[in-house]
Amino acid sequence: MDKLYSLYTFIDLAGTFAFAISGAVAAKQKGLDVFGILVVAFTVACGGGIIRDLCIGAIPPAGLSDWRYLLVSTIATIIAIGLTPLMKLLHRPVILFDAFGLSLFAVSGVDKTLDYGHNNEIAVLLGIITAVGGGVIRDIFLNRIPVIFEREIYAAAALLGAITVIAGHYLNLPDDWIMPAGFIVCLTVRLLALKYHWKLPAFSER
Amino acid sequence: MDKLYSLYTFIDLAGTFAFAISGAVAAKQKGLDVFGILVVAFTVACGGGIIRDLCIGAIPPAGLSDWRYLLVSTIATIIAIGLTPLMKLLHRPVILFDAFGLSLFAVSGVDKTLDYGHNNEIAVLLGIITAVGGGVIRDIFLNRIPVIFEREIYAAAALLGAITVIAGHYLNLPDDWIMPAGFIVCLTVRLLALKYHWKLPAFSER
Amino acid sequence: MDKLYSLYTFIDLAGTFAFAISGAVAAKQKGLDVFGILVVAFTVACGGGIIRDLCIGAIPPAGLSDWRYLLVSTIATIIAIGLTPLMKLLHRPVILFDAFGLSLFAVSGVDKTLDYGHNNEIAVLLGIITAVGGGVIRDIFLNRIPVIFEREIYAAAALLGAITVIAGHYLNLPDDWIMPAGFIVCLTVRLLALKYHWKLPAFSER
Repeated sequence: MDKLYSLYTFIDLAGTFAFAISGAVAAKQKGLDVFGILVVAFTVACGGGIIRDLCIGAIPPAGLSDWRYLLVSTIATIIAIGLTPLMKLLHRPVILFDAFGLSLFAVSGVDKTLDYGHNNEIAVLLGIITAVGGGVIRDIFLNRIPVIFEREIYAAAALLGAITVIAGHYLNLPDDWIMPAGFIVCLTVRLLALKYHWKLPAFSER
Repeated sequence: MDKLYSLYTFIDLAGTFAFAISGAVAAKQKGLDVFGILVVAFTVACGGGIIRDLCIGAIPPAGLSDWRYLLVSTIATIIAIGLTPLMKLLHRPVILFDAFGLSLFAVSGVDKTLDYGHNNEIAVLLGIITAVGGGVIRDIFLNRIPVIFEREIYAAAALLGAITVIAGHYLNLPDDWIMPAGFIVCLTVRLLALKYHWKLPAFSER
Repeated sequence: MDKLYSLYTFIDLAGTFAFAISGAVAAKQKGLDVFGILVVAFTVACGGGIIRDLCIGAIPPAGLSDWRYLLVSTIATIIAIGLTPLMKLLHRPVILFDAFGLSLFAVSGVDKTLDYGHNNEIAVLLGIITAVGGGVIRDIFLNRIPVIFEREIYAAAALLGAITVIAGHYLNLPDDWIMPAGFIVCLTVRLLALKYHWKLPAFSER
């Protein structure tokens, strides 16, 4: 169990790192200053979780009170700004970490919401918001339509992962299996979507 | 009284439907995918109420915990995507429903805020936010200046409806009259503004 | 002490006024109607504090419940709309008031967060958010990248002021000195940045 917990912590921080990198890179490209880049990096990494915590009454939000998120965001900012060669090396790992982060944030968002005694619908909605909220805020800050509304299956993968967790509780699966199951469902869908460029239909009239 | 309650529920869901339709249509035009369209529809319908609930300490927000809002938003999304002929038929009803929704959300926002023991100023401000908040978030998602800041009298109608409710309490009107009075004031102003293209003055220097 | 309190109240309202003016002027230029201008003015003045209050559990947020903020925002809107000659006279005072407001909001944000029993990291983060949050929301409403991410040192000045307050508590400085010290640090940095056009580095690839 301790090993599992360590694994979760590692994935949580790796996901935070990947989310922060994606924010820092986008902010740097838009010409923001150092502080602006850090703000956007931190927001992508923690924004979704902060909204979840406000909605379930977890005051103060963990994203603000746990210094590790800020530290990881700062490191991601420094790497994104200073280490262009390293960034090139990191390009593929970051997409992978991002998929891991998405999956973990989705299931941990469901889990925390249920822990606070809320119902299944809120848990699923807040699982998705935890996973994709930060990215939506990033795009609002950078003055563009949130890419998650247009990209390869992304929020929908979080939805499937969240539903898996709820289904696991209904089916009385062993507790140790439920979160890993949701995690694997979300990750698999996201990785397949990336590989085969799966997209949801759109109906552009532009 | 039960009849009145049923009427409120009907108007509430009709308003939610109208707000969700307006979100889904706008999102579809912008080329978002199915999931993005649903997110925007749900946000327009429930965003204002969620902000109100966070500000008055109603945790969890009703928009997240009551499945009917999500269901109505989903139906609105399906209609907006799939049923173009039906949409043409619905064009005028939707504008009407939207005015009904605006009016009901404004007075119910005031009412819920007072119920939670807060003062009149907050009640008026949160009445307006309940009524127009979702539309503002929709426009932020779609990367444009919120239309309510430029359109025919809209938020100002919500303001008048909210003030009517407060005034009704001051004047000790019978409880059963207060919300209908606020509702009728807001609705009348909004419908007249639509009919005669009333706009508040602006001072463009663009 | 009473004198100091009166001074704080004056600076608080002057800062609110300056923030509201900056919002009203920007909204007017964008062609928003009267009500939209008021909404943006009020949002700039109170948005940061409202987010802080939601995150520390101060329900309802003071920005919504204290009528003086709304009154000051309304006056600022009237001046921005109606009194163009006065606005020209006010141009330099407004930049000055804005710096005062930034400094006061940063230290009062830290102070209120600590008062509610939260840790130093949250206090610093919410000090910055109190000071700059309203301006970020203004720019999101007006559909542009938040200027604080690109402008002369601004949020970074709030950061230094917030850290000074925390450092003051660590060093056991007399309570009466701590907030003035943070205030002076933030104000000095901001005024020097304005005078000498200090900017943080950026890395535009546009």
